[in-house]
Amino acid sequence: MNIVTAIDSMKGSLSSIEANQITADVFRAQGHVVKEVAIADGGEGTVAAIVKNSAGQKIQAQVKALNGQSVTVDFGWFDSERVAVIESAAASGIQYLDGTEKTHPQNTSSYGTGELILAAMNLGAKTIVIGLGGTGTIDGGIGLLIALGVEFFDQTGQRLPAKGSSLANIAHFSVEHLDPRLAETTFLIASDVVSPLLGESGAVYMFGRQKGLTENELAQYESGMKHYQEVVSRTARLIAGDGAAGGLGFAIRVFLNGTFRSGFEFISEQTDLEQAIEHADLVITGEGQMDDQSLQGKVPVGIGRIAKKYNVPVIAFVGSFKGDQKQFSKEGVSVIIPIIDHITSLDEAMKEAKINLYKAVNRTLELLLLMKKYEN
Amino acid sequence: MNIVTAIDSMKGSLSSIEANQITADVFRAQGHVVKEVAIADGGEGTVAAIVKNSAGQKIQAQVKALNGQSVTVDFGWFDSERVAVIESAAASGIQYLDGTEKTHPQNTSSYGTGELILAAMNLGAKTIVIGLGGTGTIDGGIGLLIALGVEFFDQTGQRLPAKGSSLANIAHFSVEHLDPRLAETTFLIASDVVSPLLGESGAVYMFGRQKGLTENELAQYESGMKHYQEVVSRTARLIAGDGAAGGLGFAIRVFLNGTFRSGFEFISEQTDLEQAIEHADLVITGEGQMDDQSLQGKVPVGIGRIAKKYNVPVIAFVGSFKGDQKQFSKEGVSVIIPIIDHITSLDEAMKEAKINLYKAVNRTLELLLLMKKYEN
Repeated sequence: MNIVTAIDSMKGSLSSIEANQITADVFRAQGHVVKEVAIADGGEGTVAAIVKNSAGQKIQAQVKALNGQSVTVDFGWFDSERVAVIESAAASGIQYLDGTEKTHPQNTSSYGTGELILAAMNLGAKTIVIGLGGTGTIDGGIGLLIALGVEFFDQTGQRLPAKGSSLANIAHFSVEHLDPRLAETTFLIASDVVSPLLGESGAVYMFGRQKGLTENELAQYESGMKHYQEVVSRTARLIAGDGAAGGLGFAIRVFLNGTFRSGFEFISEQTDLEQAIEHADLVITGEGQMDDQSLQGKVPVGIGRIAKKYNVPVIAFVGSFKGDQKQFSKEGVSVIIPIIDHITSLDEAMKEAKINLYKAVNRTLELLLLMKKYEN
Repeated sequence: MNIVTAIDSMKGSLSSIEANQITADVFRAQGHVVKEVAIADGGEGTVAAIVKNSAGQKIQAQVKALNGQSVTVDFGWFDSERVAVIESAAASGIQYLDGTEKTHPQNTSSYGTGELILAAMNLGAKTIVIGLGGTGTIDGGIGLLIALGVEFFDQTGQRLPAKGSSLANIAHFSVEHLDPRLAETTFLIASDVVSPLLGESGAVYMFGRQKGLTENELAQYESGMKHYQEVVSRTARLIAGDGAAGGLGFAIRVFLNGTFRSGFEFISEQTDLEQAIEHADLVITGEGQMDDQSLQGKVPVGIGRIAKKYNVPVIAFVGSFKGDQKQFSKEGVSVIIPIIDHITSLDEAMKEAKINLYKAVNRTLELLLLMKKYEN
């Protein structure tokens, strides 16, 4: 058979690349042809997924992480197209938070992500894909902008440093020293976050707590962000995606003319996913937790909708399933296979995800070919 | 397709009949032909399973339960063959234990099971199948024997009552008033218990605690049982099965010339299971917990071994699976499908067994026919 495997990451246990690898191994061992499509949502793993899908190069760059330390991180590079792929989680990721004052959002910024853009432009990038997700900063993107040459000043004309606390003190700003190469660079924002910059579902109220803001600090932080938005933006409209990565979405859209794309759409185009599905006999997908929310268009349903057009069956492997199979069948997801095989805790199940997926794929392949195998 | 479904009970959640019914419903809804074979192990549900398999009648009889109350229970009846099927759990079952002195093994007996034999003989039974399992008594079968006319006496010649405490006081016994019809009745003991009457794995030490004996009482109770064995049996040999149902196995073997059969073997013959499997395209089996112990010949492996002879695929639905699929494949169990589909507790999983099995059978059937369904 001709198989396409495009399993989303199972957060905390398996990356998309790992999950696809398991599926591919099982099917290939039985002589089937498998195309692996790594899924990315803009967060950690986005660079790895995109590089894997199209055999790009990994380039290392030294940048300042959100905790101030110098770190070496990867970005993706496609030389012939002059396309760079960076992810905000690399330099500004939540993994650098250590619970101390030093990594409190007031004191951190997305500066290192700006440095990654510089490194990409130094290589000659004409298009930069920025994955947003998994960041630990909430600086509205001023760190990134400062790295690229934007200057922010307070009421006394003092230049403001790249940190979250500056947001509330911006009186005016200058783009005079903005890197001129930016004008000739196209920015694509790969992100699955649809939050606006401000408000209840925005960068502060929605994601602030997990990045270290206390309940008491939320209102004041939000007012700083609102002030920043009023100073730099010509419109007060709330745009979905602006709130991604602590406001990086907003900064890249407003200052760098970036365009939002869902992570799945981006991958889908990059890999000619639709064409691959059209010519497949079977499509494999999956995710960690499948439930009614998944019907709103998470990866498996996105895959299902494409496959349905071409009448190709889709099997989804899931860590956990709560929902109505029929609803998913309508969206082209033919069969949903839970991978757990005994009573266990969430922790254990996540630790066992690899072997459980392996076993589930094996028994599924066995069932697919069972009646044929026993034909006398 | 031609399907045989023979799923063992999933203890505490689904009877074999219920599990088969779910499977049968799903396959029949898709136009397949299904033969249901209810599995029984001698315990509760044995009568229902055997009656269901061969369209027997259910006959009601009023007997004395182990707690002394009069209860109405069912036994199975096959008129043309004059075969009765009774189960010891009906009158002497563990469900009557209430934790009081009244239902302590010292004060209870299997008398009611003897009354069931009488009721069967009153109908004209020539063969009586007795399912042993799930009893709450440990009387070595003297209650049953007393109901049938055996008399036990103490040293003073006093007739002993039908209760566990009598065991230690038996000086001699008489079969003078034994029901004469017994001589012309064949007894088959359907049981999956292989315990001998005495010793560590015997009726007292193995099952005494769950029937209400305290740790301190075990040794004395065992010595009463040993005394009983010495008085009534001409051999001190330990026979596997004698310890079933608190010693009922021993009594029926020694006094009624009963023959032991495993529950599965009995059902297998009664239903011409092997022949049905030979002509099936697919066999469905299953059990609650499948693990390495299941390889010792529990129901699914028993089924697998038959199916392997005829090259018929076997799918096993299990509440929980811990083991190596390959080991089971060797025994003819082609694919093992765990039915749980999300992280949950054992309690919840048992409550959800019905819907989980239903969903698992559905997705399995979908997979079996998937590639055919999508053939263009």
